[in-house]
Amino acid sequence: MIFVTRRERFNAAHRLFRPEYSDEKNMEIFGKCSNPNWHGHNYILFVTVKGEINHETGFTINLKELSRIIRVFVLEKLDHKNINLEVDFMKNRLTSTENIAIGIWEELEPHIKEHNAQLHCVKLVETENNFVEYFGNEN
Amino acid sequence: MIFVTRRERFNAAHRLFRPEYSDEKNMEIFGKCSNPNWHGHNYILFVTVKGEINHETGFTINLKELSRIIRVFVLEKLDHKNINLEVDFMKNRLTSTENIAIGIWEELEPHIKEHNAQLHCVKLVETENNFVEYFGNEN
Amino acid sequence: MIFVTRRERFNAAHRLFRPEYSDEKNMEIFGKCSNPNWHGHNYILFVTVKGEINHETGFTINLKELSRIIRVFVLEKLDHKNINLEVDFMKNRLTSTENIAIGIWEELEPHIKEHNAQLHCVKLVETENNFVEYFGNEN
Amino acid sequence: MIFVTRRERFNAAHRLFRPEYSDEKNMEIFGKCSNPNWHGHNYILFVTVKGEINHETGFTINLKELSRIIRVFVLEKLDHKNINLEVDFMKNRLTSTENIAIGIWEELEPHIKEHNAQLHCVKLVETENNFVEYFGNEN
Amino acid sequence: MIFVTRRERFNAAHRLFRPEYSDEKNMEIFGKCSNPNWHGHNYILFVTVKGEINHETGFTINLKELSRIIRVFVLEKLDHKNINLEVDFMKNRLTSTENIAIGIWEELEPHIKEHNAQLHCVKLVETENNFVEYFGNEN
Amino acid sequence: MIFVTRRERFNAAHRLFRPEYSDEKNMEIFGKCSNPNWHGHNYILFVTVKGEINHETGFTINLKELSRIIRVFVLEKLDHKNINLEVDFMKNRLTSTENIAIGIWEELEPHIKEHNAQLHCVKLVETENNFVEYFGNEN
Repeated sequence: MIFVTRRERFNAAHRLFRPEYSDEKNMEIFGKCSNPNWHGHNYILFVTVKGEINHETGFTINLKELSRIIRVFVLEKLDHKNINLEVDFMKNRLTSTENIAIGIWEELEPHIKEHNAQLHCVKLVETENNFVEYFGNEN
Repeated sequence: MIFVTRRERFNAAHRLFRPEYSDEKNMEIFGKCSNPNWHGHNYILFVTVKGEINHETGFTINLKELSRIIRVFVLEKLDHKNINLEVDFMKNRLTSTENIAIGIWEELEPHIKEHNAQLHCVKLVETENNFVEYFGNEN
Repeated sequence: MIFVTRRERFNAAHRLFRPEYSDEKNMEIFGKCSNPNWHGHNYILFVTVKGEINHETGFTINLKELSRIIRVFVLEKLDHKNINLEVDFMKNRLTSTENIAIGIWEELEPHIKEHNAQLHCVKLVETENNFVEYFGNEN
Repeated sequence: MIFVTRRERFNAAHRLFRPEYSDEKNMEIFGKCSNPNWHGHNYILFVTVKGEINHETGFTINLKELSRIIRVFVLEKLDHKNINLEVDFMKNRLTSTENIAIGIWEELEPHIKEHNAQLHCVKLVETENNFVEYFGNEN
Repeated sequence: MIFVTRRERFNAAHRLFRPEYSDEKNMEIFGKCSNPNWHGHNYILFVTVKGEINHETGFTINLKELSRIIRVFVLEKLDHKNINLEVDFMKNRLTSTENIAIGIWEELEPHIKEHNAQLHCVKLVETENNFVEYFGNEN
Repeated sequence: MIFVTRRERFNAAHRLFRPEYSDEKNMEIFGKCSNPNWHGHNYILFVTVKGEINHETGFTINLKELSRIIRVFVLEKLDHKNINLEVDFMKNRLTSTENIAIGIWEELEPHIKEHNAQLHCVKLVETENNFVEYFGNEN
């Protein structure tokens, strides 16, 4: 068993707020992250996959294929988007880093499986000081 | 003469577009950066100041004071904001990295002067692959 | 269960030595890290907390609160200090990166618990080539 | 139990290919990494060791000694070398990042044991976007 | 006048040596960089362009176009190649970082000019500790 | 003319204060950097040299030789030292980043000259947010 990680990046806008709250209450709970006019981040995404090494190729998973899966199922939905308004898998979810990481896990997990590998970790870096790691709902 | 640089960061949303263009024409010229629902970045700002060393303190400029000037005149206007909608010094300007850097220069320059130092360079990093440097309109 | 990490930094002086040893013996065992006149580091601290997501906020722990806890119980004691002479929780302990990490864990652990989360890891980076991770004394 | 990590670096040439394949077939499977004239990388290696703290020194393992072990058994074999042609422990192995990481583990593991510590992880970074982690064949 | 920088990367093999020297003499002068079996690097390239801002777009140069020029005239020639054997503009040149940077300048300079901008600097990073900057033969 | 940069690092303790001031006055002017028990940093040093390329070697200056000069004349004096107490070239100077950078310039400049090259810049990074650049007293 070996662990392989691919780093990808996307730039997106978002806002932390609950629609049933007033702007004032959102500001109180979420601070400046609740700005109704949005703000944004250069998100950095680390996707870690685990599996046996294929002796024909020396690879656990072909990184070009892993990169393609991430691009099609995650980056094309998130990059240069408004995460609150435009991302199908974030509908009705607060766009906290935690929830985005879980959403990305759910998007990727079935597609990794098809390659004789398992998704191990989604790490999502929001700023140089804050990041989140999700290992699936069995961990 | 010695050069002193302070790094600061802000997270903001923006959009590259010309209001007189259609969304289609904006997309043609500005690509996905023209998304009408905005996107965003973790901007990294490097402010370089030059001057003589004050022999009493060993400093060209007290970095706490430089940091305060950047916070009051730049970060409080840009951090967690929509650069197109909410930033006074970007009114009627395309929010390209070039124009934001020039806007930051104009905000900072008079306040640096008051400290026996000169603003030398505003470097603004939009992504890990793209950055802009402005040295004022005499250079 | 999800893991959230906050990065913080502090600059401090220290010295590796045993008071019962001569300077020569300390030099033999600890090398130049035993310099009696001290040396210092820009320490980088990563504090990882795990827990369930609060569905009201989307957060495992509010990062502003986590940052405040780290500042009050760790940074105010360590930043711009002499770790051997001035830090209460390092009294009578060799100031190796290992021991500082364990000391930081003991300072933080009770305060994280009060927020429906568990301290998972204290990672302390001493130089770009050396770091330590501590997961508590049950791991 | 505490975890200590040492970072080291080496620059090497390699090629991904199977000798029984034609250049065309190698190109199809391994892409430009199969270039018969080689290409190369600045590899970054993180070696993590775990163990109890020695109360005399405050160390899990003396990092100078860990660094020496890595230098003698790994870096001197890999640095400024052709991994396919010149590295004894990579003979008859595809030089994928996965296989190099396992080879490094096998080189280091017996020598770490002699120091009352256990090798925990070999992390090998091939590019800023790709890395591999190996925790031994019992994990 | 404003300065815009694009970062790109390529991985390549090379060797420092003079063909008229013996392997022994090459080793004496170039050290392990002269290994006849090659070694390699993850080169990081920063291309800085200067010019006036186009008021229609807010750009000095469209970064997609700058990125395309670098890809076509530099990266496709260098990435995953052997710089000594396969790169036309390095024929009969020692493949020192200095000479590669000058070669890249000569490749890029005429194509930047066509975009109402001037090439200002080619910065080439060979390792995290070594880099070279070239500003053209008039500087 | 081409510019070559070597990065080196040192860890040291220091204190900003004027001996003729009281501890209280030092605290007022220099803040927590004046702590009488010292604090410290992982300083990062970038030394940039300029010159013609030697056509025999392809080098402006042999980086091994540049690294040796920095080690002998700078790092051995500063690394794991107390800059206020133990560094000959900092005697009677406030140990601000500005003054350390100038001191390093004066140490290096005559030795670079002997290698048909000129010292161009000493850049000294004190923290990830603060750095200083010195280009000699003619600039």
